Amino acid sequence: MQRRDLFRGAPLLLMARRARASSLSGYEQTARRIIDAALTDSGGWAKLEYFCDRIGHRLSGSKALERAVEWAAGEMRREGLENVVTPAVQVPVWVRGAESAWMMEPREARLAMLGLGGSVGTPAEGITAEAVCVENFEELEKLGADRVRGRVVVFNQPWRGYRDTVAYRSQGASRAARLGARAVLVRSVTPAGLRTPHTGALNYSADAPKIPAAAISIEDAMMIDRLCRQGLRVVVKLQMEARTLEEAASANVIGEIAGREKPEEIVVMGGHIDSWDVGQGAHDDASGCAAAWQAVQIVKSLGLRPRRTLRVCLWTNEENGLRGGRAYREWAGDSVRRHVAAIEMDGGAEKLRGFGLTIQGAS
Amino acid sequence: MQRRDLFRGAPLLLMARRARASSLSGYEQTARRIIDAALTDSGGWAKLEYFCDRIGHRLSGSKALERAVEWAAGEMRREGLENVVTPAVQVPVWVRGAESAWMMEPREARLAMLGLGGSVGTPAEGITAEAVCVENFEELEKLGADRVRGRVVVFNQPWRGYRDTVAYRSQGASRAARLGARAVLVRSVTPAGLRTPHTGALNYSADAPKIPAAAISIEDAMMIDRLCRQGLRVVVKLQMEARTLEEAASANVIGEIAGREKPEEIVVMGGHIDSWDVGQGAHDDASGCAAAWQAVQIVKSLGLRPRRTLRVCLWTNEENGLRGGRAYREWAGDSVRRHVAAIEMDGGAEKLRGFGLTIQGAS
Repeated sequence: MQRRDLFRGAPLLLMARRARASSLSGYEQTARRIIDAALTDSGGWAKLEYFCDRIGHRLSGSKALERAVEWAAGEMRREGLENVVTPAVQVPVWVRGAESAWMMEPREARLAMLGLGGSVGTPAEGITAEAVCVENFEELEKLGADRVRGRVVVFNQPWRGYRDTVAYRSQGASRAARLGARAVLVRSVTPAGLRTPHTGALNYSADAPKIPAAAISIEDAMMIDRLCRQGLRVVVKLQMEARTLEEAASANVIGEIAGREKPEEIVVMGGHIDSWDVGQGAHDDASGCAAAWQAVQIVKSLGLRPRRTLRVCLWTNEENGLRGGRAYREWAGDSVRRHVAAIEMDGGAEKLRGFGLTIQGAS
Repeated sequence: MQRRDLFRGAPLLLMARRARASSLSGYEQTARRIIDAALTDSGGWAKLEYFCDRIGHRLSGSKALERAVEWAAGEMRREGLENVVTPAVQVPVWVRGAESAWMMEPREARLAMLGLGGSVGTPAEGITAEAVCVENFEELEKLGADRVRGRVVVFNQPWRGYRDTVAYRSQGASRAARLGARAVLVRSVTPAGLRTPHTGALNYSADAPKIPAAAISIEDAMMIDRLCRQGLRVVVKLQMEARTLEEAASANVIGEIAGREKPEEIVVMGGHIDSWDVGQGAHDDASGCAAAWQAVQIVKSLGLRPRRTLRVCLWTNEENGLRGGRAYREWAGDSVRRHVAAIEMDGGAEKLRGFGLTIQGAS
């Protein structure tokens, strides 16, 4: 999931409101029917429940993701959506395996950790090394190779919004590896957490050795930072069985209500059907899938047929590869020029705070 | 920790305010000095940091609790507190060992769990049984022995305040065992948690078999409840190595500033030095220890000598035995009649919301 500024669409919403009387009044009754149906409908909740409770996590390459794809396509057909297809997508397969992180000095304590998606593993005996703690990349560079070589770098970067802070998760391993670090521990990219570590993808640079990388909880990162600042020697031990296997077959799931006047013009909406492996993937992104899918299903159940084609797409492998989105672009081919809108929900399903909107000119 | 109604002392505070002009004006300058010192002092924070980062958890019977007792007594002496003693207290020793809980049907998923303090363990192969989910004791009794026997009872009791809800953690195992349950899983006693299970003590009744008991996260309890309500067969597997060992030696830690006019009259203040084993015991109750201890230390460092004796006590084994408190009562003997106030802090160290006050007549 990429978080966005949720409020930047506000001026456009005001413009839309002013324009409503002139151009939207004809749709008001229909819109009201859809809203009323949505407010009393529990089909979206039932879908979310099935994704989370009956299927569980849906990491790329897992049996659970396969089951999710099959179930969603079958349900779309049963509900009467049209042109239900599951175009094949080859996806990376990363498996976490057993993993743990410990502080060994100045006292022995288990750290709350999660390996980062895509990370290489450690040797079986783990990596035990002195920790060096930095808040940001500038501090790391200032330390230099002499003080980083052979160490485990701990990035204690506080939350400064997703876009800025996530750089330490995605680039931290390679930035530290270039200076000779053996592994990195990254403070979880979140403003709050009850000692909850957060996983997510990392990106290895081509010009640096691949070293193991894990997230640790905010609390544990702050503790290591406090101990280091007191001049104490902090030693950590990291064990990760993480590895990347052969790629596997997955699929996007697509269903439609064909348009009555301009069926070749497409409004696509959706979420990503895959998730990380350490939860149920409820917010990220079963809720997006369920909301987009049920929006189309409500239109269908009201017997409405829109002027343009309404297409729901549950993209596979957003988390660790973006293969589903790219495969969709290829699958759509030239028809992508006739996509009139694309609506994606991948920001969780808590209380609605606003909308984000990106408008691009024709290319 | 027992949570209390933090606001019930408010009328007394108002009375105290009205009385201030007449009886407290002589103390105002001294109180101001103490407050000013406390607001710029970092000694309490340093103590909290040492308890949490350098010692870690302090479960009764652990080496860490021994270290905490030694360190605190040594520090009190070094700081110049008087009559520093560590009266011995025999404490129970419960060890958690390896533990896990899994949902096996309708799908396999690890549950976020923590065994309850004092619980017996499972056989090595674990207990695998169908779950029966109830919200409260009334639902359990209504099910009756026929539908509970041989099952794992899941108590999905929502948070209704600590006092009401904690009954499911403390009494749930015996209530279910009387109906033939093999184990219980109790929804964590907390209003919120990022899939964080909460441990705490359970109390086995003498008239029921002792069966293993663990807390599971709110989210996992709600999931099992949803699945059961859909009529699905839910099977769980619980493995716990928990066991109770021989009792061990521990100690309360006591230090004083002897009173200048009425040294035999005592104001005691403190927190409990022990903690559960799955964190640092920062809120529960290193913060209480540090606050009480540093309050006395600030008076000391300002060169003040109060009329009555100020005594700080760090009680051992509050969590799973209350032995420290009881031992203090014995140790104090008849002098307890000359305790003029007892101040205890065991409600965490977040933003202050109020004070609680209990006044008892002479007995």
